[in-house]
Amino acid sequence: MKILLIGATGTIGSAVYSELSSRHEIITAGRNGADIPVDITSPESIVKMYEAVGMVDAVINTAGNTFFGSFSELTLENNEIALQSKLKGQINLVLLGRNYVNDHGSFTLTTGITMDDPIVGGVSAAMACGAISAFVKSAALEMPRGIRINNISPTVLEESIDIYEPYFPGFVPVPGSKVASAFRKSVEGAQTGQTYRVY
Amino acid sequence: MKILLIGATGTIGSAVYSELSSRHEIITAGRNGADIPVDITSPESIVKMYEAVGMVDAVINTAGNTFFGSFSELTLENNEIALQSKLKGQINLVLLGRNYVNDHGSFTLTTGITMDDPIVGGVSAAMACGAISAFVKSAALEMPRGIRINNISPTVLEESIDIYEPYFPGFVPVPGSKVASAFRKSVEGAQTGQTYRVY
Repeated sequence: MKILLIGATGTIGSAVYSELSSRHEIITAGRNGADIPVDITSPESIVKMYEAVGMVDAVINTAGNTFFGSFSELTLENNEIALQSKLKGQINLVLLGRNYVNDHGSFTLTTGITMDDPIVGGVSAAMACGAISAFVKSAALEMPRGIRINNISPTVLEESIDIYEPYFPGFVPVPGSKVASAFRKSVEGAQTGQTYRVY
Repeated sequence: MKILLIGATGTIGSAVYSELSSRHEIITAGRNGADIPVDITSPESIVKMYEAVGMVDAVINTAGNTFFGSFSELTLENNEIALQSKLKGQINLVLLGRNYVNDHGSFTLTTGITMDDPIVGGVSAAMACGAISAFVKSAALEMPRGIRINNISPTVLEESIDIYEPYFPGFVPVPGSKVASAFRKSVEGAQTGQTYRVY
């Protein structure tokens, strides 16, 4: 398959690249160090990316920022980070990319455990992830030409536990390779509308 | 209790008013026909509303618009209706209203069945409702001064089944009074972080 992988240089994106690159042609996109530059907060940038890449069999997104910090510090302004990036950025990748995915192709987006099992500091991320999970479930009913759509919701990764451990007390980290397997399931499998939880 | 009810003239808002007005002091807010005018898509309007009302024991929101229509017609532009109103409007009511709710008071927001049990045409609504449900679950961990936060997720109402029946095939409608009871549970009960599903 020809796969467009957005966010390829991140921790999850790298793991997905390792999992899929031996069997598929991967075009990477991202803000830095990728084949194609893209900023998912900009619809114009997303359109330019699709125009540059052309038709693909699968779109995978592992990019998306959020404000991480205490609820008392969450403001309308810093809540926009998640709204523009992890929430609208991912949805716009689908809305603007529908015509660039081949028949029976797929979209795979990224959410996260904090929408189900919340942590202090993660309100804005939970909001964005809840939106994406419900969007996916609903959009799957109406995707054209047999195109499928799923999202992967990972817990904290072993590869980043040193940074995030204080924020995820008692959460058992999983290896990035296990999260990447869920992306493979989404791309190579036949299910749609799913939230694959890797907890 | 002193309760601020936003969206009081809608179908759900009217049912909530009937349920709570005999036991509580209700101040209504909305775009039309309410004690206080408010447009929840405008942060300035939300701030003005809270300044006019002052401290309350509970904030209930039943207002919020979304684009309803097929996924093929969902665009970045009409998706903004739900983003600005049902999603950000409700979240901004919390972020801007935190300091106007008395100790051990509550916020109660409104979601809907389509986030769990999707229908054709409801992608944008599902997105907004999924965001609110996850926001509530996460924000409950960090609300100050014992303030609680919940959301009510109703199915289609008997009062509006004549309009919505074609879009909800096989969904069993519930009376508005049953939905209103869930709002009472949220306001008068002790739970927080909950999504009360009235399906």
